[in-house]
Amino acid sequence: MSREAISISDDSVALVKRLLSETARRVDEHLLQYLPEVGQPAQQVTEAMRHSLTGGKRIRPMVVLQSAGTFGLSADAAMPTACGFELLHTATLIHDDLPAIDDSSLRRARPSCHAAFDEATAILAGDALIIAAYDALATQAQIEAVAPGAVLQVIAEFGAYAGAGGVIGGELADIHGETVGTDRELLEYIHLNKTAKLFEAATRAGAILAEAPGEHIEIIGSYGRSLGLLFQVTDDILDVTSSAEALGKPTGADEQAGKQTYPALVGLDGARQHARDLAEQAVVLADRLPANHPFWRGLVKLVLDRQA
Amino acid sequence: MSREAISISDDSVALVKRLLSETARRVDEHLLQYLPEVGQPAQQVTEAMRHSLTGGKRIRPMVVLQSAGTFGLSADAAMPTACGFELLHTATLIHDDLPAIDDSSLRRARPSCHAAFDEATAILAGDALIIAAYDALATQAQIEAVAPGAVLQVIAEFGAYAGAGGVIGGELADIHGETVGTDRELLEYIHLNKTAKLFEAATRAGAILAEAPGEHIEIIGSYGRSLGLLFQVTDDILDVTSSAEALGKPTGADEQAGKQTYPALVGLDGARQHARDLAEQAVVLADRLPANHPFWRGLVKLVLDRQA
Repeated sequence: MSREAISISDDSVALVKRLLSETARRVDEHLLQYLPEVGQPAQQVTEAMRHSLTGGKRIRPMVVLQSAGTFGLSADAAMPTACGFELLHTATLIHDDLPAIDDSSLRRARPSCHAAFDEATAILAGDALIIAAYDALATQAQIEAVAPGAVLQVIAEFGAYAGAGGVIGGELADIHGETVGTDRELLEYIHLNKTAKLFEAATRAGAILAEAPGEHIEIIGSYGRSLGLLFQVTDDILDVTSSAEALGKPTGADEQAGKQTYPALVGLDGARQHARDLAEQAVVLADRLPANHPFWRGLVKLVLDRQA
Repeated sequence: MSREAISISDDSVALVKRLLSETARRVDEHLLQYLPEVGQPAQQVTEAMRHSLTGGKRIRPMVVLQSAGTFGLSADAAMPTACGFELLHTATLIHDDLPAIDDSSLRRARPSCHAAFDEATAILAGDALIIAAYDALATQAQIEAVAPGAVLQVIAEFGAYAGAGGVIGGELADIHGETVGTDRELLEYIHLNKTAKLFEAATRAGAILAEAPGEHIEIIGSYGRSLGLLFQVTDDILDVTSSAEALGKPTGADEQAGKQTYPALVGLDGARQHARDLAEQAVVLADRLPANHPFWRGLVKLVLDRQA
């Protein structure tokens, strides 16, 4: 399929860019309330959490908020859950960067957590962020427009997508993948679990809170999964083609570590074609949603064309 | 106050020992259901989780179950939450044992997680166990006898007691404490946060699920806090007086690391006196509970006299 098959207006992309910038500002206003001010002697753990939260693009929270909005819940009403996804995502970044895992000293254009503090603090700050993520999800129950049962369903799904059967399992596979030759099945497992499942969970979460029909939760979840797979393929591509300055994290790291990536498996052109296929899949799913089409289509193009 | 001030019958202690053994068996039957069978290539994370869960005494789950029972909820009905506390506790043990924190290679009479697997797996297994703990807490909502609002309250409190303002903060303070001289205020902070708060949360959780009156939740929570402080003082004492064989973890490690402990602050006799004072506090609180006095009294004596 050709690039032109994905016809997405520039207006849609502009809409998403504007929303992303607005969302980032609003999420940043809410995020820090989930960091306990513990005072001395443990204040450093909060400082480390705050350090690592700084500078994220907040794509996952935006996805939660827009999914809620698509099904009739005001985006603001889903803010606690949106924050929960960013807190968990940041926890995984901190632990991924540790010397025993990816050993990366740059993240979000700043020193990674263990580089700015120390390993012990980074391990504990990551743990505390996982817990803070659940604090945020539980706080969602204080929003009157949302049913307690929906909040509990989001909490239960969050674990299924983020835990050993999702993000955490994907991270272990990612490490394992460095020790073996290119392997499509393993690569697909890593992309699905490490990255796509959290996008899937984020799209589903907004819809669940809005009490969308089951069929719509499935469609937006599948969209989220395709978008997440696209996000990871473009991440692989940028690791080859971009600079640390543009990305705010080291580039060339995947090849150096011998990671499973699409550029390694099928070359850069093959990876770009795979990205376009995933974008097309996502657009087909976006068009089956009941509302917000310009946003969901524009988001696909934003991720497909992202330079950072 | 003399040892004799705490008059607790041998029958009560025998009752607690019997219950602990029964509880351990029943908790072990339920615990593994919260470990996802993820299959290859990430099966190792589940294996590491299972490895570290093996061999615990299951005191925290017993406390949850007995607290529920004290306020009229059948102990079995609180099993998911009981498992949640053991899963979180085990996560903290795995991360505590890491080279960057306590660097301990023996735990629960087996190699610690990173010693049996590797550091990356241990970091991820700990993360997955925190998430599995919340899976268990959320599963509690499937028990008909329990109100969704009570489950959400337990989840919210769990984070407040386990996160940066509780267990995680206590762990960071514990590391910091190795670098300074003996300091009573710091020691009390560490014992309260690192250990006592999870006991407090466990006693409160059972009572909350049983919809106990607020006043009773406060009393049993205070009991849990005193019991947890007692547990940590006896832990400090055993690190001086016991053997690795009896404890299933290294002894003498606290002094070697320069940790804040009661034996270091006030000597062994002073630490023992402090333990008796805490036990007395806990017994006074136990006697204010509406039921189950032999159990709650017996548990104090079991912890006071524990040899492992």
